[in-house]
Amino acid sequence: MKQSAISHPRSARLDVETELEERKRLVEDALHRALPPESAWPETIHRAVRYSLFAGGKRIRPLLVLAAGEAVGGSRDGVMPLACAAEMIHTYSLVHDDLPAMDDDDLRRGKPTSHKVFGEGIAILVGDALLTRAFEIMADAPAGADAGDVRRRLAATAILAEAAGTAGLIGGQVMDLESEGQAVDARALEKMHRAKTGALLGACVRGGAVLGGGGEEDRARLDRYASAIGLAFQVVDDVLDETGAAHELGKTAGKDARAGKATYVSVHGLEASRQMARRLREEARSAVAPLGARGRLLDGLARLIVERRG
Amino acid sequence: MKQSAISHPRSARLDVETELEERKRLVEDALHRALPPESAWPETIHRAVRYSLFAGGKRIRPLLVLAAGEAVGGSRDGVMPLACAAEMIHTYSLVHDDLPAMDDDDLRRGKPTSHKVFGEGIAILVGDALLTRAFEIMADAPAGADAGDVRRRLAATAILAEAAGTAGLIGGQVMDLESEGQAVDARALEKMHRAKTGALLGACVRGGAVLGGGGEEDRARLDRYASAIGLAFQVVDDVLDETGAAHELGKTAGKDARAGKATYVSVHGLEASRQMARRLREEARSAVAPLGARGRLLDGLARLIVERRG
Repeated sequence: MKQSAISHPRSARLDVETELEERKRLVEDALHRALPPESAWPETIHRAVRYSLFAGGKRIRPLLVLAAGEAVGGSRDGVMPLACAAEMIHTYSLVHDDLPAMDDDDLRRGKPTSHKVFGEGIAILVGDALLTRAFEIMADAPAGADAGDVRRRLAATAILAEAAGTAGLIGGQVMDLESEGQAVDARALEKMHRAKTGALLGACVRGGAVLGGGGEEDRARLDRYASAIGLAFQVVDDVLDETGAAHELGKTAGKDARAGKATYVSVHGLEASRQMARRLREEARSAVAPLGARGRLLDGLARLIVERRG
Repeated sequence: MKQSAISHPRSARLDVETELEERKRLVEDALHRALPPESAWPETIHRAVRYSLFAGGKRIRPLLVLAAGEAVGGSRDGVMPLACAAEMIHTYSLVHDDLPAMDDDDLRRGKPTSHKVFGEGIAILVGDALLTRAFEIMADAPAGADAGDVRRRLAATAILAEAAGTAGLIGGQVMDLESEGQAVDARALEKMHRAKTGALLGACVRGGAVLGGGGEEDRARLDRYASAIGLAFQVVDDVLDETGAAHELGKTAGKDARAGKATYVSVHGLEASRQMARRLREEARSAVAPLGARGRLLDGLARLIVERRG
């Protein structure tokens, strides 16, 4: 029973996919409720924030939060604020990264980017607003929250802020900006991606475990899992950038390579990158295997990350 | 004794100024400690963050936090995280407002703005980093913090985030962007400034009172004070923009007026604006008068705000 995800792979896989789909709908609803209404003053910014936040993302970060929370026995409602906050921070980073002064992207998920639709000034403020709102949601404890709830909330906020800061998301983007057109070795590349992508993915898993009230042992397992999927995510991204169809990515394939940006594929080659992704996926699986059925959603997400096509 | 700030105006005034100077040095030290060292990876962003954060600001926001905390009997160390966080959020908003896509300013406090020195991409990330770090500091409770500390910290974080969000700082900036070159009436102008400037100043006072453990009654007094100084600050800014020497402001005088931006002076005239500032200063004084000596720093700051020349 505990090993169902391993002993009945096909049906279990469908079950997990159904469960993830159901969680994704809950996340969409929670995100809608986590924002001021579109008609709130000043309307422009709320319309623009929603444009980017509901542009069809896969919601991998909130799903990781929910899966980690459930894996340690936490309540879904209890970890939902972190799920929403993480997705807002992810979206803010995309909006700012797409700006002309950064990666200068016109398309994101097949739609014109925020600054193309609303102008650069508003796009900068959209990112600022999402980042700020993320922390507001974390700080907004319900009136009846007990001392433990409040303490876990603050701890999860610290984890999220650290991952979003200069040692994480922002540091990675600085390194990305500075490495454009430069030769980057394998170590520097891994450092950049661990910061730019891995830190936030990891914070979703670790923060979900903390907010869900997980014990030391479970948290250590989830740490190993987080480290593996964080890197896997970026390796797969680079493989897709090299090989993927533009319409599936919603952006121009091969763009990073042409921009002279270092990728796993440019440093290690395509086949080695694919192998690396498979190895990391196995690492993630073995990290959560001791959790049995409680780890099934985390395992399903690791597969989703590695097998995704866009 | 309790009324010393009123019965011995001249010497009391000098005492308060000395006390504020001393607090300001404590704030500078705390801000230095609140950032990663300049040599931390990636160096560019930490150098750029320090360039803007230590550009010679008057530290009015952190001083308001400390003054509010002391007014309600809180400890200075206890409210210092909010003091630093508020100054970081203020600085982030200046860096982003100065960007070419926003107000397009080359000078700030007499020095080239962040994007002129480090480029637009880094300047955007400097703002992002300061905003993120502000919340990280708030969330980073000491290991031995008791349940009350943790709860007050989370409450102060919520106050800060709300003021920085779309109903406050960001909303005001959106309105500012949208009102350029448009006729703005007195009501819209006040709304914009209450959001753009008043909200964060108010959050410093209210957040300082909450973090300092203030009771209901004191907090209501400080709310009245906050509302008055928030508006006074902007009125004085507009008067200085109209009349002030460029070298004192560290920016080009009359710039807002020439850019077709609505100001208190353009809407109400210079003399009425000056009167308004004096009236608001009296409102602030009477709000904190019942606090006696405990309110002397708040009173001193209200004077500083209204009598400042840059």
